[in-house]
Amino acid sequence: MLKIAHLGPTGTYAEAAALAYAQIELSDTDFCLQPYPNIAQTLIAVAGGDVELAIVPVENSIEGSVTMTADTIWQLTATLQIQQAIVLPIHHALISIATNLDLIETVYSHPQALSQCQEWLQQHLPQAGRISENSTTAALTTLATLPHAAAISSVRAAKLYNLPVLVQPINDYPDNQTKFWAISLQPSTTGNCTSIAFSLSENAPGGLMTALGFFANRGLNLSRIESRPSKRSLGEYLFFIDIETDVNNCPQLKSALADLDAYAETVKNFGSYHTIVIEQN
Amino acid sequence: MLKIAHLGPTGTYAEAAALAYAQIELSDTDFCLQPYPNIAQTLIAVAGGDVELAIVPVENSIEGSVTMTADTIWQLTATLQIQQAIVLPIHHALISIATNLDLIETVYSHPQALSQCQEWLQQHLPQAGRISENSTTAALTTLATLPHAAAISSVRAAKLYNLPVLVQPINDYPDNQTKFWAISLQPSTTGNCTSIAFSLSENAPGGLMTALGFFANRGLNLSRIESRPSKRSLGEYLFFIDIETDVNNCPQLKSALADLDAYAETVKNFGSYHTIVIEQN
Repeated sequence: MLKIAHLGPTGTYAEAAALAYAQIELSDTDFCLQPYPNIAQTLIAVAGGDVELAIVPVENSIEGSVTMTADTIWQLTATLQIQQAIVLPIHHALISIATNLDLIETVYSHPQALSQCQEWLQQHLPQAGRISENSTTAALTTLATLPHAAAISSVRAAKLYNLPVLVQPINDYPDNQTKFWAISLQPSTTGNCTSIAFSLSENAPGGLMTALGFFANRGLNLSRIESRPSKRSLGEYLFFIDIETDVNNCPQLKSALADLDAYAETVKNFGSYHTIVIEQN
Repeated sequence: MLKIAHLGPTGTYAEAAALAYAQIELSDTDFCLQPYPNIAQTLIAVAGGDVELAIVPVENSIEGSVTMTADTIWQLTATLQIQQAIVLPIHHALISIATNLDLIETVYSHPQALSQCQEWLQQHLPQAGRISENSTTAALTTLATLPHAAAISSVRAAKLYNLPVLVQPINDYPDNQTKFWAISLQPSTTGNCTSIAFSLSENAPGGLMTALGFFANRGLNLSRIESRPSKRSLGEYLFFIDIETDVNNCPQLKSALADLDAYAETVKNFGSYHTIVIEQN
């Protein structure tokens, strides 16, 4: 039985991504889903061998990087490997037993979902308090007893918890997508995208351009660059980059990575993988 | 009377940064502080001419970029100008009328402060709900009536609201600093750091390296690179970069910016400025 960790409780977008992944990639494999209370713990579960896979959000098209995923994947001693990227369309719904918006005093959700609906909330629920939860579904277990509360989650989650949808969609930008990674300890070496992270032994300035030059000078395209604080001092960063290339046919990537290994303080290579884009349903 | 906008209500770290800035830079000028309910509105107030200056958080050494500042400064039609950077040490305190931690059921603060104390909260208040507010001080106005609530803010804020500090410091990393910008509509052309943002007309890959090359090829150091989603589609970004150079003595910067202007879709030059580092008190 292949165990897949995801952010819980049941009904999260991470669970929807896990199910989409399993449907496409695991048709002949017996699997089960294992919800965890936060994203960090799903990654720790993979690193510790408690589960074979974790499905974690990486970035959203509106709010950007999911910092807990980046920070945890960097901090873990094991170098986790990305097996696949899954891009999921995100349509947020306002879920509540209240029959109209005037009754709602508090809105619960994950901070990313609250941010993705901030203009809608400002316009339609300016007086409501916003409560951050570890997931979009954490509040759904008790929402049936709260006549003045609402949660932001998916229509699918509302159905799972047998709760009414008051308004949907409520995301500020209709074209809202989140990219997830399917992560395991298995070596990952096939695909058209390679993700790495690195820190530099001296402070970044010239160092970053030198490091990026290893790729640029070989004609390798970077499709994403993300900086995160090193947490050592202000102005010192880690860098997460995605390189677009067919790794099986790319000696340039190997030699660029060898140069980076020699130059950087620490390099983590999360492997090469393909991307599945899930269509609207 | 020079009006300075900051995130309110009174007692925020932005207000502390505004006072530090005024003390150092405005010794002979009559000024007043104007609190606003969120960061975006402080920037809108400057752009609209309602105030002369805004003091806004840009990045924290642990949690990274303050996305509302980056997104708003990009979206405004006016190109705001950075007059100064102010680096403030951040020591969070748990403020509550509760006499011990067991009584606390909810913790209020700004999402950045909640994140900067997440390990402490996990260890000492695992069962307490975490409520996101627009600022670290928003909850302090009512905290005296809430025996089961706490807020994360500064010792200075606790004194201002006459509230007891239960534990301090509670930030997960002792060396926690936040960088603020003092922003106005006045042209800003002097300093050792220049901040710009740009978008690219084609999707980023080779484009980003080309754009960064304009600076690297002229020996200009980038001390920060931050990507934000364009909000048009996943994988399309804006880039915020800081270039370290004495702008008054740097023809290379002028020609690099001219090349970037010709190449990029949109470039915003937020000007050149110096940094003040506030010592621990």
